[in-house]
Amino acid sequence: MPQNTKTAAEIIGKVFPCLDHGFVRLVDYMGSDEAVVQAARVSYGEGTKKLREDRGLIRYLMRHQHTTPFEMVEYKFHCKMPIFVARQWIRHRTASVNEYSLRYSKAINEFYLPESETLNLQSAANKQGRSTEAVDVELQKQILEIIKAGTDQAWQDYEKLEATGLSRELARINLPLSLYTEWYWKIDLHNLLHFLKLRLDEHAQYEIRVYAQAIAEIIKIVTPIVWEAFEDYILKAQTFSKDELILLAQMLKFTPESTEPLPVFEDSGLSKREVEEFIEKLNSMKRLRDH
Amino acid sequence: MPQNTKTAAEIIGKVFPCLDHGFVRLVDYMGSDEAVVQAARVSYGEGTKKLREDRGLIRYLMRHQHTTPFEMVEYKFHCKMPIFVARQWIRHRTASVNEYSLRYSKAINEFYLPESETLNLQSAANKQGRSTEAVDVELQKQILEIIKAGTDQAWQDYEKLEATGLSRELARINLPLSLYTEWYWKIDLHNLLHFLKLRLDEHAQYEIRVYAQAIAEIIKIVTPIVWEAFEDYILKAQTFSKDELILLAQMLKFTPESTEPLPVFEDSGLSKREVEEFIEKLNSMKRLRDH
Amino acid sequence: MPQNTKTAAEIIGKVFPCLDHGFVRLVDYMGSDEAVVQAARVSYGEGTKKLREDRGLIRYLMRHQHTTPFEMVEYKFHCKMPIFVARQWIRHRTASVNEYSLRYSKAINEFYLPESETLNLQSAANKQGRSTEAVDVELQKQILEIIKAGTDQAWQDYEKLEATGLSRELARINLPLSLYTEWYWKIDLHNLLHFLKLRLDEHAQYEIRVYAQAIAEIIKIVTPIVWEAFEDYILKAQTFSKDELILLAQMLKFTPESTEPLPVFEDSGLSKREVEEFIEKLNSMKRLRDH
Amino acid sequence: MPQNTKTAAEIIGKVFPCLDHGFVRLVDYMGSDEAVVQAARVSYGEGTKKLREDRGLIRYLMRHQHTTPFEMVEYKFHCKMPIFVARQWIRHRTASVNEYSLRYSKAINEFYLPESETLNLQSAANKQGRSTEAVDVELQKQILEIIKAGTDQAWQDYEKLEATGLSRELARINLPLSLYTEWYWKIDLHNLLHFLKLRLDEHAQYEIRVYAQAIAEIIKIVTPIVWEAFEDYILKAQTFSKDELILLAQMLKFTPESTEPLPVFEDSGLSKREVEEFIEKLNSMKRLRDH
Repeated sequence: MPQNTKTAAEIIGKVFPCLDHGFVRLVDYMGSDEAVVQAARVSYGEGTKKLREDRGLIRYLMRHQHTTPFEMVEYKFHCKMPIFVARQWIRHRTASVNEYSLRYSKAINEFYLPESETLNLQSAANKQGRSTEAVDVELQKQILEIIKAGTDQAWQDYEKLEATGLSRELARINLPLSLYTEWYWKIDLHNLLHFLKLRLDEHAQYEIRVYAQAIAEIIKIVTPIVWEAFEDYILKAQTFSKDELILLAQMLKFTPESTEPLPVFEDSGLSKREVEEFIEKLNSMKRLRDH
Repeated sequence: MPQNTKTAAEIIGKVFPCLDHGFVRLVDYMGSDEAVVQAARVSYGEGTKKLREDRGLIRYLMRHQHTTPFEMVEYKFHCKMPIFVARQWIRHRTASVNEYSLRYSKAINEFYLPESETLNLQSAANKQGRSTEAVDVELQKQILEIIKAGTDQAWQDYEKLEATGLSRELARINLPLSLYTEWYWKIDLHNLLHFLKLRLDEHAQYEIRVYAQAIAEIIKIVTPIVWEAFEDYILKAQTFSKDELILLAQMLKFTPESTEPLPVFEDSGLSKREVEEFIEKLNSMKRLRDH
Repeated sequence: MPQNTKTAAEIIGKVFPCLDHGFVRLVDYMGSDEAVVQAARVSYGEGTKKLREDRGLIRYLMRHQHTTPFEMVEYKFHCKMPIFVARQWIRHRTASVNEYSLRYSKAINEFYLPESETLNLQSAANKQGRSTEAVDVELQKQILEIIKAGTDQAWQDYEKLEATGLSRELARINLPLSLYTEWYWKIDLHNLLHFLKLRLDEHAQYEIRVYAQAIAEIIKIVTPIVWEAFEDYILKAQTFSKDELILLAQMLKFTPESTEPLPVFEDSGLSKREVEEFIEKLNSMKRLRDH
Repeated sequence: MPQNTKTAAEIIGKVFPCLDHGFVRLVDYMGSDEAVVQAARVSYGEGTKKLREDRGLIRYLMRHQHTTPFEMVEYKFHCKMPIFVARQWIRHRTASVNEYSLRYSKAINEFYLPESETLNLQSAANKQGRSTEAVDVELQKQILEIIKAGTDQAWQDYEKLEATGLSRELARINLPLSLYTEWYWKIDLHNLLHFLKLRLDEHAQYEIRVYAQAIAEIIKIVTPIVWEAFEDYILKAQTFSKDELILLAQMLKFTPESTEPLPVFEDSGLSKREVEEFIEKLNSMKRLRDH
């Protein structure tokens, strides 16, 4: 295993800025790539192995969705984000959270104001998404003015309500979803990777994707071998449905003989075991097609 | 067991109004008091018993925090509430949720406007709570005007942003926390009782307590024996710390002889087993005191 | 939606035998295919649609791993299985369980004795699996005799220890892992499908796969459209890693022009939307290859 | 906060023996008393305070069941225990586990043989428990002989089955519940305290209580202030039901005047806030009684 401990230690507490006022900050972590290997070796009852085998084991676990060893690493972050981002984030239930409470404490005058270039229109094709078309500069300006005036007004109202002595839990009810909140967020690596898979996806809202990208930067440093396996086997992988596999098999036009290892495997970066697994997938595609 | 099936069936789909535009509605449920007994009897390996014994078993389970049989009952609700209530509610992670999405669908023009008499000032004693003092009527009026004008403005802005064609996920960011949202919420009875314990508490914010009370009405009908046990052993119970128990023992001034069942137990409503348990608690208080 | 309610109702309580003394029995359920659609429509804010669209929606949710609507269906089973199977089963933590307790109740004299034809030897290739080779009949007989004599002896010892008056929780400690136990098991459909994905897999131990198959029979009846989508998009799907996708792209030898819908799609059973998604997957394969 | 970091660091990896062949070993941990305070202060939005206030905050959180800050501390243990203990332990679902697998690896010849003095008979009063009566020495000897002979035979059979080449996953099915297994177990402090509350209880089976006690020793060192609060407010506390509170109020015979702080509070160790809370509990008892 590469010695990342020092580098990981260096980023503890470091602010990774997100959006206009937000951030992600690694507060603490427990375990690293080694902890995954250590836990897996308990299950398999094997002794410690060499570095190359450790990497191979992590990649095997990731590829075959043996997820429990990845739960043995724990991350704790301090995050600051707009409430509408926090509302998407909190849907991931397998985490521990302590959030700044507007019942106890006064709100802070910080609201998310999008960058002009992210002000995309509603996508026609995708009901939940933004179009990628450029928006007229004049329209951008107009939109930002409405948003800015809205948050200014909301903050003035909040100050006025506070001044009346109204209880905090009521004074805050008209604060907008663009208000920044913050929390401590603790989660194990397996569930964190699942969060990243969903929130790095291009269908995730841009504003939460920014946070997922910052977290990804952090875990690349703390658990680099796990991250590499996650990219190769999950993030950049594709799943094909039964009917898609039949189509692929038709397109490949391969015949029974073509199941032999092909020269192309030489440069593929696949391990010997993965070549076998790949050929088995090809064969099972053929069986689906010829069924 | 009393035959509540019919009554429970009758309230399926019925709207229990909460606050000015909200509600709770029982969509479906699985199991009733009987399901708790049935599951407990698997563990204990006993055959079916009579009604009186079923009630006794449920009360025993509740009293001794044998919580798993209560997980065998499932509830599904349709709820509509202001976003600031939803944000407290969602912190209960052991539930399944599908919420109305403002990325997909247009917001609905409904905002929470508190009743005048609930507009309490910040409590001096309790950092997170409201004072119980009455508020000046003129001040109430003034507060409501600020809130009302704020939501009117926010809605106008939202309509304007929608009209520009801005993507929905952006157009909604300045909508206030008082906007109503809705969701399907599914949870087992054990975790629902835990939710109710916390949200029926007088320290819970009034606006979520209203929802907890509506849900309590529903589960009283569907699982009446469980509800009765929950009230007697959890809701209306008190826990005394080690030092408080020592004080109590001093105040009781009891001596070794006083551990015998006292006449007062005759009318107490305690079962024979509970009398034994109570005397054991008194004795353990004395041991703490005399230690 | 097809009206399966009646058929589902018919199998409630029906014993699905597993192994020599075990079974799975549907005790209760909440919701059906419709409940998934109902929950998803809350999120999307759409009204009720026609049957064909309901099926399409369920398939869309399954394909894109929008898993929360599947949590809205709940299943409760009564199961009886050898303890070594129960030990694998219980690792699925997102379920509620009440198990027969050997601290409270006497054990029942039922042990798992494998069928001769399932007595496979250790696989050389797969450290955790069985070889598929046939085993010598004489050896089978010999193995079964050892196992049978072992359980007979263990039961005699248990009876002797019980006769001494030894506490049950100690008398049971030498009972073997082949002893049958039973439990109530309650789980939502999303987590049940995950259980089935892992336990229907050919790498799962044969003895737990038998139970997964029995449960699959049941959910095919209660939630048939969900099951069909699960088979097409999960069970019979294949995931290809980044490097495998590059290989596939090389084998397909396709060029930029080949991204146009090919005639082969006509008979593919893919919906219009799925054809677009498939072409996008092919294009992304090419991009990986040509990168 | 006391500086326990050094002491905690010293016990990492140290074996805490349990039963005849078992142990608990702290592998790693994240956070300490400070981490609880740090997370709570995010919610309350307050700056760092002095040591005395930190202790007070932890005690306040424990007393009022504000449990989320306790989730911010994480523990990882390596444990070895008989399978029947592991089966009780695994019922705590909010933990991560990697267990030694008898499908992959050969069993180890270690079985739990109880100490003579723990061989209690079945309790007459308590269906799930042991009597506390001493057992005849001759009977003890006889019981141990049966158990010892049983495990010897089971091991011989296992060796014989292994020798036939039978797959490991089948060869192990007649191994008894007294066989030792081991695992890595990771859990947050809130859920660990809940585990300890249940497993330190005198109704827990002696053999798992031994492990709970070893873990308690460890967390006393790593999170001493949390442990102290846990003892005072949870472990040594008593909960009284509604009817018990009425009885207590009758026994106390107190009148409205007696609600004034009594001299006895001077030496009670209660904080000013706790005295107020105690008087409120007494008053609510009276209200229940006089209702």
